[in-house]
Amino acid sequence: MISRFRAPIIAGALIASGVLSGAAAKKPQEPAGDPVDFVNPFIGTTNFGTTNPGAGVPNGLMRVTPFNVMGSDTNRYDKDARWWSTPYDNTNSFFTGFAHGALSGVGCPDLGSLLLTATTGKLDVDYHNYGTAYSDEQAVPGWYSLNLDAYGIKAETTATARTARTRFTFPAGEGNILLNLGEGLTNESGATLRRVSPTEIRGSKLLGTFCYTADQAVFPVYFVMRISRVPSSQGMWKKQRPGAEWEAEWNKDQGKYKLYPGYSKVMSGDDIGVWYSYDGMTAGETVEVSMAISYVSEEGALRNLEAEQPAGTTFDDIRASARRMWNDDLSRISVEGGSLRDKVVFYTGLYHALIHPNILQDVDGAYPVMESDSIAYVPEGHNRYTVFSLWDTYRNLHQLLTLVYPERQTDMLNTMLAMYREHGWLPKWELYGRETYTMEGDPSISVIADSYLRGLRGFDTDLAWEAMLRGATAPGAENLMRPDADDYFSLGYVPLREQYDNSVSHALEYYTADYALSRFAAATGRADSTLFAERAAGWHNYFDPELGVLRPRLSDGSFLTPFNPRQGENFEPSPGFHEGNSWNYTFAIPHDVEGMIKAHGGEKEFVKRLQAVFDNGLYDPANEPDIIYPYLFSRIKGEEWRTHRIVGELLDKYFTTAPDGIPGNEDCGTMSAWAIWSMMGMYPDTPGDPAFTLTVPRFDKITVKLDPEIWGKNYLEIKRRNAKAHSGRISHDEMLRRYGK
Amino acid sequence: MISRFRAPIIAGALIASGVLSGAAAKKPQEPAGDPVDFVNPFIGTTNFGTTNPGAGVPNGLMRVTPFNVMGSDTNRYDKDARWWSTPYDNTNSFFTGFAHGALSGVGCPDLGSLLLTATTGKLDVDYHNYGTAYSDEQAVPGWYSLNLDAYGIKAETTATARTARTRFTFPAGEGNILLNLGEGLTNESGATLRRVSPTEIRGSKLLGTFCYTADQAVFPVYFVMRISRVPSSQGMWKKQRPGAEWEAEWNKDQGKYKLYPGYSKVMSGDDIGVWYSYDGMTAGETVEVSMAISYVSEEGALRNLEAEQPAGTTFDDIRASARRMWNDDLSRISVEGGSLRDKVVFYTGLYHALIHPNILQDVDGAYPVMESDSIAYVPEGHNRYTVFSLWDTYRNLHQLLTLVYPERQTDMLNTMLAMYREHGWLPKWELYGRETYTMEGDPSISVIADSYLRGLRGFDTDLAWEAMLRGATAPGAENLMRPDADDYFSLGYVPLREQYDNSVSHALEYYTADYALSRFAAATGRADSTLFAERAAGWHNYFDPELGVLRPRLSDGSFLTPFNPRQGENFEPSPGFHEGNSWNYTFAIPHDVEGMIKAHGGEKEFVKRLQAVFDNGLYDPANEPDIIYPYLFSRIKGEEWRTHRIVGELLDKYFTTAPDGIPGNEDCGTMSAWAIWSMMGMYPDTPGDPAFTLTVPRFDKITVKLDPEIWGKNYLEIKRRNAKAHSGRISHDEMLRRYGK
Repeated sequence: MISRFRAPIIAGALIASGVLSGAAAKKPQEPAGDPVDFVNPFIGTTNFGTTNPGAGVPNGLMRVTPFNVMGSDTNRYDKDARWWSTPYDNTNSFFTGFAHGALSGVGCPDLGSLLLTATTGKLDVDYHNYGTAYSDEQAVPGWYSLNLDAYGIKAETTATARTARTRFTFPAGEGNILLNLGEGLTNESGATLRRVSPTEIRGSKLLGTFCYTADQAVFPVYFVMRISRVPSSQGMWKKQRPGAEWEAEWNKDQGKYKLYPGYSKVMSGDDIGVWYSYDGMTAGETVEVSMAISYVSEEGALRNLEAEQPAGTTFDDIRASARRMWNDDLSRISVEGGSLRDKVVFYTGLYHALIHPNILQDVDGAYPVMESDSIAYVPEGHNRYTVFSLWDTYRNLHQLLTLVYPERQTDMLNTMLAMYREHGWLPKWELYGRETYTMEGDPSISVIADSYLRGLRGFDTDLAWEAMLRGATAPGAENLMRPDADDYFSLGYVPLREQYDNSVSHALEYYTADYALSRFAAATGRADSTLFAERAAGWHNYFDPELGVLRPRLSDGSFLTPFNPRQGENFEPSPGFHEGNSWNYTFAIPHDVEGMIKAHGGEKEFVKRLQAVFDNGLYDPANEPDIIYPYLFSRIKGEEWRTHRIVGELLDKYFTTAPDGIPGNEDCGTMSAWAIWSMMGMYPDTPGDPAFTLTVPRFDKITVKLDPEIWGKNYLEIKRRNAKAHSGRISHDEMLRRYGK
Repeated sequence: MISRFRAPIIAGALIASGVLSGAAAKKPQEPAGDPVDFVNPFIGTTNFGTTNPGAGVPNGLMRVTPFNVMGSDTNRYDKDARWWSTPYDNTNSFFTGFAHGALSGVGCPDLGSLLLTATTGKLDVDYHNYGTAYSDEQAVPGWYSLNLDAYGIKAETTATARTARTRFTFPAGEGNILLNLGEGLTNESGATLRRVSPTEIRGSKLLGTFCYTADQAVFPVYFVMRISRVPSSQGMWKKQRPGAEWEAEWNKDQGKYKLYPGYSKVMSGDDIGVWYSYDGMTAGETVEVSMAISYVSEEGALRNLEAEQPAGTTFDDIRASARRMWNDDLSRISVEGGSLRDKVVFYTGLYHALIHPNILQDVDGAYPVMESDSIAYVPEGHNRYTVFSLWDTYRNLHQLLTLVYPERQTDMLNTMLAMYREHGWLPKWELYGRETYTMEGDPSISVIADSYLRGLRGFDTDLAWEAMLRGATAPGAENLMRPDADDYFSLGYVPLREQYDNSVSHALEYYTADYALSRFAAATGRADSTLFAERAAGWHNYFDPELGVLRPRLSDGSFLTPFNPRQGENFEPSPGFHEGNSWNYTFAIPHDVEGMIKAHGGEKEFVKRLQAVFDNGLYDPANEPDIIYPYLFSRIKGEEWRTHRIVGELLDKYFTTAPDGIPGNEDCGTMSAWAIWSMMGMYPDTPGDPAFTLTVPRFDKITVKLDPEIWGKNYLEIKRRNAKAHSGRISHDEMLRRYGK
């Protein structure tokens, strides 16, 4: 996989450091310098990391991404052959276009549509035929390029917040540009488009049905596309429904792609597209395609295009602006010393952490109201966010945003509260205004409470309390966050009611949320604090002192029997546990480590059992519940070295500069946030407990720009010293005192 | 078939006259009186007549039509089981909705979409399931009603020029209203819709691909639909693409109709729909649905709705207005004496003659420019027409419109000239702004020339000359009217170049057109008259004196050998002849009957051979070329009785008050126009020769209102006298002199 790795700007430095083999880099390199130059967008693009090397800006609505997961047996992974959740895999080899608006680092298929590509010669609108092998793939933040081998076309793409610009450089002869609205990563189909002028089309395409299970989470993306040159000819296509056999005599297009060369009005269907053809290109001639998207309306997409690509904007303007935006954001943390490899891992991680949640509103502030057909406007100067993969990101990503990008985290908090106002519920796994109900728990509570407890105040805490209370108190029949709330409230746990339900995983999320809520209540002087703290202790219900693990419990109070704590490895079904087994959850109670130590029979036994998870290969670095495990050792004096060692080993083993350099699904920045915190030497292990467990940083010096109005300091300065100096656990405020300047 | 015949308003009178069996009519009847009361919309609705009993107004854009040709084996004819060109057949029995915008009397599938129906109980959006048997079917011009047996729902529909109103009367319980945009008679698919409010949707659906062969004649119909009551719930559906087998584990909707109960934005796809549900209806509660269409835009449809159904407009208002419009138009001809049966045939024929061409423009005058994506506006007070089935209608329908509805014919002429200005060509078989190139010839010439020669002057004759000259002179490679123009111009005929081409049929059309053009040229003082007259004599090339028939000729001048003039009966392939055999074409040269008589060896032999066509069962009353044959006898003194007898026999045999009461495809009014003229005792047998061949009228007295500014008379008064008085042939002017008042 290393041989397909391309990132020329940093490749020279990487070769020198031994990170990359020389075979991968063929061009002279700029010296590495700015943080942005250390980002390698190919990291995480295989091994189910599901990141992609496409172009975007930090937290941008647009992400324009190479699509190489359909149409050819030469691909290793095919979206139509298995569950597949990314538009791009680095080990694939058949390119079928640039997707406009793509998710990065998720485990379910969605978005990744509006597929744009170019060909030469006779028009063919079947992606099995027009797709092509490619070479000379290159990417830096905000820019991606490749050569389309079948055509000798160079294709490059770049982006603004809501628009993309793609430049195709053609060889001599006939060239074609194709936009395919029939395919994409999404499981939804159906699109409509209309020609506005010979160089502009507008339309919409349906997206959604995230994870298949969210079959009602459906929403349209609207678009405006403009091409830079008037084509010699153009038309639309639509794949025809298969007809009756007798009809084939008359209908030559039955079941095939029908071409509509003369049609120029509205076109709708499951599988439609538009093409532009250019006769007599001279070698090196370019056609640029501007694409703007909106989740509000076609008019919104048009406004986005006109605001972000005003007349005269060149491809290079956009690329330079995207680079500048990335560099500005990445520069909030500067690192010195340490290996080049670690710098690449670190800045690429930070790059990944700044992709989702992304903004949702158009340039005029309009956004689709949560679970509604109406439109609202975000206050000027603020952003409405979307793509809240909260079961993942409540654990560490939002803590990173809270500290380093507090203006963004504050807008996200206000977005979450707006969703509550609009829809009656805080988000669980929100996707473009639709709640997908993916994974379990009540994760917004942890995000809101933690942000407040660390010091963010730019949101309505009374409204937040009301919103959080809803999931924490509503009866099960109406509780969209906690469908098993009745059992949980009355029994203190969620009993196993079906062979492979996720009852323990559900309850653990509720304990975590209720712990954070109790801390929020206490901090804001609310009496309910005790109730929620008591609930949070309910994890004891699952603890089996004999096996020393969490074990599903039935509604009569008895444990599930027989029971094998290892059942559920490798995505096998597991009774009570979601995407893992008992070992991946047993220590996932960071809010009550003291309780755990007692339950396990004291510190020694606790450490022994926790260490055994690692020694016996039961630790999953890619599934969220256990990623705090390495930090739990540090709760016990004298055992901090285990944290240091294991964190270091995990960083070395699983976080690399290769395309498989993320241990598994990136989960919207959660994997990368684990690495970022770990490399900075501090980890926010307990949502709702404003603290950090320390570890040895990977750099000699780390400087984090702070907002002094929020944190009372201008920056943090973390210098690598001896291991002792990076041991133990400190509060958020102590961290500011210790490292703040 | 008679047993399914329903037309209650006139049924009483028909029963009395013996036209109908009493079993068919169960309700007390109004006395027959106004012309509109003699119309039976069920005539022609089987036997491939392809008319339908739907509601519309004269020459209206909207025609709302019961759709009963899919979804059940109980139907005799299924649109998906064979070539099928009508949304309704009277012998079918499974109703799946009202189509909005339907063609009447055509031989190719198109339009007939936006299928609206109602059900009760649990929602089911699969038409195989929600379709139903029906009873108590009733229709009068502008109104149609039936009971949906499966649901106990009464459904009635009525129309304005561009809108429909449908009223569903529900039994107690839950009711549903469904609009299906996935099915229809058209071979095009693809639709998009969006919710505007809980009671309004807007959208568009693709139509076209007429006759399959016109695969580029594609155009959208735009619509706005409003319901009269806020539903208890609503949603949309979309049939999902069939997915991979592995995917079925996750995707429960794969290949099925997926319901989107919470979705309220834009929906697009091949097969989509929208539903409204009402809880707790009380028996007899009604929901009314207003549907407006436009071929310009959604905004156009909205304007049409607001103009034609302003606030407060009731169902009964619309129905009464439609009746009034029909009665006004039908009243231009009043008949006295004669049988009730003949009155029904006559007025139903006139009703059929006033369906197509229909208006195309929105209330603001906007219409889609011919073969263009732009919009133009028709001058105030005038109409833009569409659905020009000219190979059929040039023969007799436009002559009827010329005489009785000259303001309409003039607007049609101006429409045809506007099409020439817009597209460069006069229409051949035009459908909603697209040229379908169906059938052969250059038929606009006959229409324009004949109208001019009879006396219409309300169009630009210089432009008309230019337009007609294009088809008559352009080389074959660019000649969209006469693709075999090169052969025709150089050889004087079109040689057979493929086994089953339609070469003779093509050439006969060109002779006919060139004859009309020569007469126009002469009448407007143009020298080219002679050239075109000479061309028109070219039919001699095909005359085989041995067989006494027209016979295909090869490019070397030799006749096709072997040759059987009967080959081509019953839609078998026929060398040289289109939808017929040599006998159906041999006498189709009305512009040169003298020439024919000579060629056939004199009057006696001519009469003998012509009579043999009838005696030997070679006459096809349902295919256009030979429908003038009965009138040709009258060109020979002493033989007029044959015309009288045969015309009378054909009227008796093929034109009846039963659903199969049209001999075959109505062809947009051409069959009916034959009956109307024949029953009035005069027939315009030669396009371009402003004359009529007379026959004995079927009524004692016929009064035709005339436009005195055009015809110099206020009305015609034709009284039935002895056979001699109705013999021979008279010029148009002589007709006005003889019968005008």
